[in-house]
Amino acid sequence: MAKEPRPIDELTIWDDAKAMLRKAKAEGIETVYDRLNQQTPHCKFCELGTTCRNCTMGPCRISAKHPRGVCGADADVVVARNFGRFMTGGAAAHSDHGRDLVEVLEAIVEGETSDYKITDEDKLFRVAGEIGVDTEGRAVMDVARDVLETFFADYGSRKKEISLLSRVPQKRRDIWAKLNVTPRGIDREIAEMMHRTHMGVDNDAANTLLHAARTSLADGWGGSMIGTELSDIIFGTPTPSMSTANLAVIKEDKVNILVHGHSPVVSEMILVAARDPEFVARAKALGATGINVVGLCCTGNELLMRKGIPLAGNHLMTELAIITGAVEVIIVDYQCIMPSLVQVSGCYHTKFIDTANKARFTGALHYDFHPDTALRQAREIISLAIDTYAERDPSRVEIPGEPVDVMTGFSNESVTAALGGSLDPLVQAIAAGDIRGAVGIVGCNNPKIKHDSMNVKLAKELIKKDILVLVTGCVTSSVGKAGLLVPDAIELAGPGLKKVCGSLGIPPVLHYGSCVDNARILQLCAALANALGVDISDLPVGASAPEWYSEKAVAIGLYAVSSGIYTHLGHPPNILGSETVTNLAVSGLEGLVGASFFIEADMVKAANMLDERIKAKRKGLGLSE
Amino acid sequence: MAKEPRPIDELTIWDDAKAMLRKAKAEGIETVYDRLNQQTPHCKFCELGTTCRNCTMGPCRISAKHPRGVCGADADVVVARNFGRFMTGGAAAHSDHGRDLVEVLEAIVEGETSDYKITDEDKLFRVAGEIGVDTEGRAVMDVARDVLETFFADYGSRKKEISLLSRVPQKRRDIWAKLNVTPRGIDREIAEMMHRTHMGVDNDAANTLLHAARTSLADGWGGSMIGTELSDIIFGTPTPSMSTANLAVIKEDKVNILVHGHSPVVSEMILVAARDPEFVARAKALGATGINVVGLCCTGNELLMRKGIPLAGNHLMTELAIITGAVEVIIVDYQCIMPSLVQVSGCYHTKFIDTANKARFTGALHYDFHPDTALRQAREIISLAIDTYAERDPSRVEIPGEPVDVMTGFSNESVTAALGGSLDPLVQAIAAGDIRGAVGIVGCNNPKIKHDSMNVKLAKELIKKDILVLVTGCVTSSVGKAGLLVPDAIELAGPGLKKVCGSLGIPPVLHYGSCVDNARILQLCAALANALGVDISDLPVGASAPEWYSEKAVAIGLYAVSSGIYTHLGHPPNILGSETVTNLAVSGLEGLVGASFFIEADMVKAANMLDERIKAKRKGLGLSE
Repeated sequence: MAKEPRPIDELTIWDDAKAMLRKAKAEGIETVYDRLNQQTPHCKFCELGTTCRNCTMGPCRISAKHPRGVCGADADVVVARNFGRFMTGGAAAHSDHGRDLVEVLEAIVEGETSDYKITDEDKLFRVAGEIGVDTEGRAVMDVARDVLETFFADYGSRKKEISLLSRVPQKRRDIWAKLNVTPRGIDREIAEMMHRTHMGVDNDAANTLLHAARTSLADGWGGSMIGTELSDIIFGTPTPSMSTANLAVIKEDKVNILVHGHSPVVSEMILVAARDPEFVARAKALGATGINVVGLCCTGNELLMRKGIPLAGNHLMTELAIITGAVEVIIVDYQCIMPSLVQVSGCYHTKFIDTANKARFTGALHYDFHPDTALRQAREIISLAIDTYAERDPSRVEIPGEPVDVMTGFSNESVTAALGGSLDPLVQAIAAGDIRGAVGIVGCNNPKIKHDSMNVKLAKELIKKDILVLVTGCVTSSVGKAGLLVPDAIELAGPGLKKVCGSLGIPPVLHYGSCVDNARILQLCAALANALGVDISDLPVGASAPEWYSEKAVAIGLYAVSSGIYTHLGHPPNILGSETVTNLAVSGLEGLVGASFFIEADMVKAANMLDERIKAKRKGLGLSE
Repeated sequence: MAKEPRPIDELTIWDDAKAMLRKAKAEGIETVYDRLNQQTPHCKFCELGTTCRNCTMGPCRISAKHPRGVCGADADVVVARNFGRFMTGGAAAHSDHGRDLVEVLEAIVEGETSDYKITDEDKLFRVAGEIGVDTEGRAVMDVARDVLETFFADYGSRKKEISLLSRVPQKRRDIWAKLNVTPRGIDREIAEMMHRTHMGVDNDAANTLLHAARTSLADGWGGSMIGTELSDIIFGTPTPSMSTANLAVIKEDKVNILVHGHSPVVSEMILVAARDPEFVARAKALGATGINVVGLCCTGNELLMRKGIPLAGNHLMTELAIITGAVEVIIVDYQCIMPSLVQVSGCYHTKFIDTANKARFTGALHYDFHPDTALRQAREIISLAIDTYAERDPSRVEIPGEPVDVMTGFSNESVTAALGGSLDPLVQAIAAGDIRGAVGIVGCNNPKIKHDSMNVKLAKELIKKDILVLVTGCVTSSVGKAGLLVPDAIELAGPGLKKVCGSLGIPPVLHYGSCVDNARILQLCAALANALGVDISDLPVGASAPEWYSEKAVAIGLYAVSSGIYTHLGHPPNILGSETVTNLAVSGLEGLVGASFFIEADMVKAANMLDERIKAKRKGLGLSE
């Protein structure tokens, strides 16, 4: 039996979302909330993580009455295996995205594309130096070739450790070595997790979870970090700029193009093509005032960070953006793209276009993007979008409200530059207690949770306590729409944070990029720890994914914890069927890696727990609380 | 509600198994059949493949009433994703096993071990030549170094295709290229499958299944084949010899050591240590007549093939072997090791020992095997086994029946040698119709199926029809115990097969090794196709996994089909919830790759269908039916 539908006011905190949910209802369009309702109640075994279907002697369901599956696996083993594969889905997603950037760099170096180029040569040389590539007096393309070979090798199984571990404090590396969780090769750890979780392989929950930690570290310090660094090298390292957010960035008088997914590779070309005066003129000839590219989710974050492109919304806004009735095309790459978007697009004139061979959508128009043909393909899509504008039904267009301003572009490079060339002023502000600590709020939306309520609440609670907040991914849109990504938001911050951010002219909540860009936060923590000569786990920092839904969020959470960062989740993964696994996650990991998860649905309490942790870590460093 | 237990006579066709099941019952020991009973009925959604738990917006169950999950995925997408991950668990298991052999070769080349060595230098040079490594006038270790580098690279993501594709007929390679399923890197395809099956990535069932094909090919022509070839190079290429099978290979008057799992790496060292006269003398001093190493499952196959070590049984015999009460130690590596074996061992004096960091068992004694310490560790275990013999309770020992003879050791090399140095006599026997075709019967046991009934029945039906049968893995024990692995079994064969096998002095059913050794069958098919100038799909061959249970069996089945081999399964994987996926598997693949699966639980019918296929293929080649 499905539950009674929740009233629209209980689904989201945003007026733009509510307006579109009412429109969807009026027009008979099914949304994620309707389907959640249909799928409720969920299977208790799957929720507890105690279903096993890894062989056909089953499927099995572990319970107190039947405590072992057909093979003999108990709840601990089954939950650990399921968690391992779940987390690995996320690590693989990030890392396979990172690999695409290595392949774009390869196409540049091999001269197979002129659509892409190396934009930030300084960063290329800096990263090269960090991974042991000789840079002295060498040509850009020679250095780039060695960098891409090194990163390709990071995906292989020939190495003893991945290259960007050079950034990790020695104390942390010693902990990993002792636990035998130093990541060797990115794909290797993924494949080994799939092997371990086959019937009759790894049948010790703690051992499986240690390999999950290793696999997550291969993501955080490997696949994701490679994705971030090469995206900067190819498309430019973000610097602060202003932009706007919410559904009102979609414009009634323009040809609207949504880019959605996670990679900048296709969307950057869409942007280049959309700015071609020839196309703009064609759009104007049809009565539009121009071509408007706006972003969703992490592809949106990538373009927002580097190009100041407006952000239409996050995960739970993706269906609703189309429901404005004003979108000509939605172009997707991969990850977190609800397949329902094909059906929602079909309710309007909107063309749904997929672009990756590995992420096809039944019913979509497919453009098989490759580096050597990318701009030509992007131009075809822009042309199609302009043609499609003529098919728009103005009577079905409704774009709610007005856009809000956001400041974006906070990379480690731009932050360091703003601080005068080193992180010392930040270290001093932390030491002085003006900035008491820092928390990264990351992750997703989940229709089980009132949309953006936790993301926004936690950010507000933390900045009140003089805790600097860094946001990525879907949380960008949450805090942006709440007005926290502008310098004026210091009025909501505690006195110390207000003083520091005020003097720098920056918001108390910094937009740090997309979900792969959580690697930037890892790098920042490592740099701070190295500057202080301590381990990452000694820093007054924390992480949180309040409204997470995705396997990737679990990978991020686990690499954060395994790197020594205390991490909050708004709700647990499907592990509660095993006391062993649950206890390890929420306390046992503390003794192993110096950090653990905590689960808390009340954001005031969550903020207090992060605050207590920061107090303890400040005390450990000999600082005021 | 669990079903009524089935009578013991309905569980298995074997007297040795029945005796042990009666003993288990009398002694109150739970077996796999008891747990299957507890787990029956199974969840219908999981059986149909329509449960999704790849994110926490769910878990979801797709049904006619609720045809889409929270994200919008329909049954096709959910089933394809689940199948993709299931198959990938198998491909990863085989391939990660193969990687271990590359690492042993590395340890040999780097001089880190003297316990292991290169045994078959001729094969090393032959394989090197096939993968483009220069061999002319070079030292063994130099060639070996290049071979291991090439194979490591096959696991990476730098290549456009894996190296052993050099064996594949051009027509087949063209098909793969056209479908974009040429395997690039082994771990890469695994990681990409995990990426594709994340929420919002690949949402087209057919596209996901094509990548499943690619990943399976990376296993068959990559990970598995590397495992087989390097095992031969390091431990010797099998040649025909006689041995014995069934539980009676366990000896009441000896120190009994079971080796179980899939790799020869640990078990070969156990064998070396067990033959040390010092240990034999110690065993005799305690009243035993010697030390008896016997195998289970694929580790057993590896030792049977190369060293003639007796085979105690297959998957469903593993618990029962311990229940004899006469096993001092059971030493496991990885895969298909029921975790219940720890509990069953605990009911006796038996020590359960795990040996791989990636396959720990809660409650086991752990020896962390590495190439540089392997023999020393093996000696410690043999010493422990001898000590444990003193703890055996003779009143609880029951070893049923007498061993049966088996002929083993049929590698492609030994078959070619037996045929006088080339495959021509085999090609001629096929052309003449004496051997009408060949079928590989492979895979597992499954407690849902009367133990070994299908494996034996199908082999008997096929040889009657003058179809040569090749067996691997758990089917070895099945047909061995049925008396089909001896030259006298030609009496059960049709007249043509009887004539050919009779003249060669070989059985009509050939033991071709372990499950990774299905790569030998792929290689044989490729060699036959190349000899005839045709594609593999043109050959009068087939494959079958009648009693499969494991993810690996699905990987094997899919690489067989994707290689052009018509493949029978005794029961379907959990895909029936999607008509699209099911239809693709059982018919649609035919148009794409020239072969498909068929599902049939009646072995007479299955044999007839394989026979019809062989007739059609013979006709296609211009041969008599």
